[in-house]
Amino acid sequence: MPSQIDFWFSIGSTYSYLSVMRIDKVAQLAGLTFRWRPFDVRAIMVEMNNIPFHTKPAKLRYMWRDVERRAAFYGLPWSGVPPYPIKHLSLVNRIALSAADAGWCAHYVKAAYRSWFVNGQDPSVEPSLSDNLRAIGQNPDEVIARATSDQAKDALETATSAASALGIFGSPTFVTNGEIFWGDDRLEDAIQLHQAGTAAS
Amino acid sequence: MPSQIDFWFSIGSTYSYLSVMRIDKVAQLAGLTFRWRPFDVRAIMVEMNNIPFHTKPAKLRYMWRDVERRAAFYGLPWSGVPPYPIKHLSLVNRIALSAADAGWCAHYVKAAYRSWFVNGQDPSVEPSLSDNLRAIGQNPDEVIARATSDQAKDALETATSAASALGIFGSPTFVTNGEIFWGDDRLEDAIQLHQAGTAAS
Repeated sequence: MPSQIDFWFSIGSTYSYLSVMRIDKVAQLAGLTFRWRPFDVRAIMVEMNNIPFHTKPAKLRYMWRDVERRAAFYGLPWSGVPPYPIKHLSLVNRIALSAADAGWCAHYVKAAYRSWFVNGQDPSVEPSLSDNLRAIGQNPDEVIARATSDQAKDALETATSAASALGIFGSPTFVTNGEIFWGDDRLEDAIQLHQAGTAAS
Repeated sequence: MPSQIDFWFSIGSTYSYLSVMRIDKVAQLAGLTFRWRPFDVRAIMVEMNNIPFHTKPAKLRYMWRDVERRAAFYGLPWSGVPPYPIKHLSLVNRIALSAADAGWCAHYVKAAYRSWFVNGQDPSVEPSLSDNLRAIGQNPDEVIARATSDQAKDALETATSAASALGIFGSPTFVTNGEIFWGDDRLEDAIQLHQAGTAAS
């Protein structure tokens, strides 16, 4: 069994901020790697008739306060509630998916979350969209053109179907040994099962 | 500031099994007490247009596996997926509420969850309903008659309105220092904030 956990996420998911920003440190401490797997959580939520947070004021208020408290707990930056929901969730996740093939996915996703949560800018609209790509040494025009192609749309749909087939319905989700763990707060549970499975194999 | 955390719950909530069964030990280790506060989570969910788990197969499957894994983690009994949802959520929570006034709430709620999760019996229907009361030394006829009175219905509505006014939308929820913590997996966060608040006062 490879010492690797699949990290399924969508840029645009609020709790995924916590995982995106702490996962490298967690990986190092646990001595394992994560495979970054972008998908379109919004498409799955629509299909499942899940009602998103932003239509439920009490839950939304609670969610932000909970993310803020957890960010403090992990020593992550917090600059107040960022713009929500982001406008073009599919576009930035298509970028992340093509970046996964090219080897700069984690780099891009961290830049996107930093602009969103730390600078308070929707990473899916300009100027943030291009700025984040330039900041990690990518050519925005080329990357965005590629991400708006039919091929990129198909690729994200395929990734999202794969997520759905695994039983994934939210972001972040960690997958190891055929089990899924939903939520940043289940990352440690996933590692525990992964290590038990790896030791047994 | 009193060294007490409010523990809001509804019998019928699945994740509340974990809190109900481990909270005494947690309280002892942390040197604090919990005030057991029954409310009607279903009424709040209907009001908020929250779609319950049992209409979402993927989420439901995941939820049970997650509860099972977490039960194992806490060393709690697990006998497979119990009957769900329970039939008369309001009735058993009206019993729990009158029990809170009489001083045997925790005792009753633990008996109800044990019959539900360990013996696989819906605690809100007979014979489990009466058996659970007898097992803790209560007279089922008297208790059930009291719990079906208008006064008991009003009392649960009042408790539920109080929960709603605090921003509560799910069970279990822990409240301390004016902050709410939703989910069994936030119990430790609640204690941490509680102790920080108590130390500062």
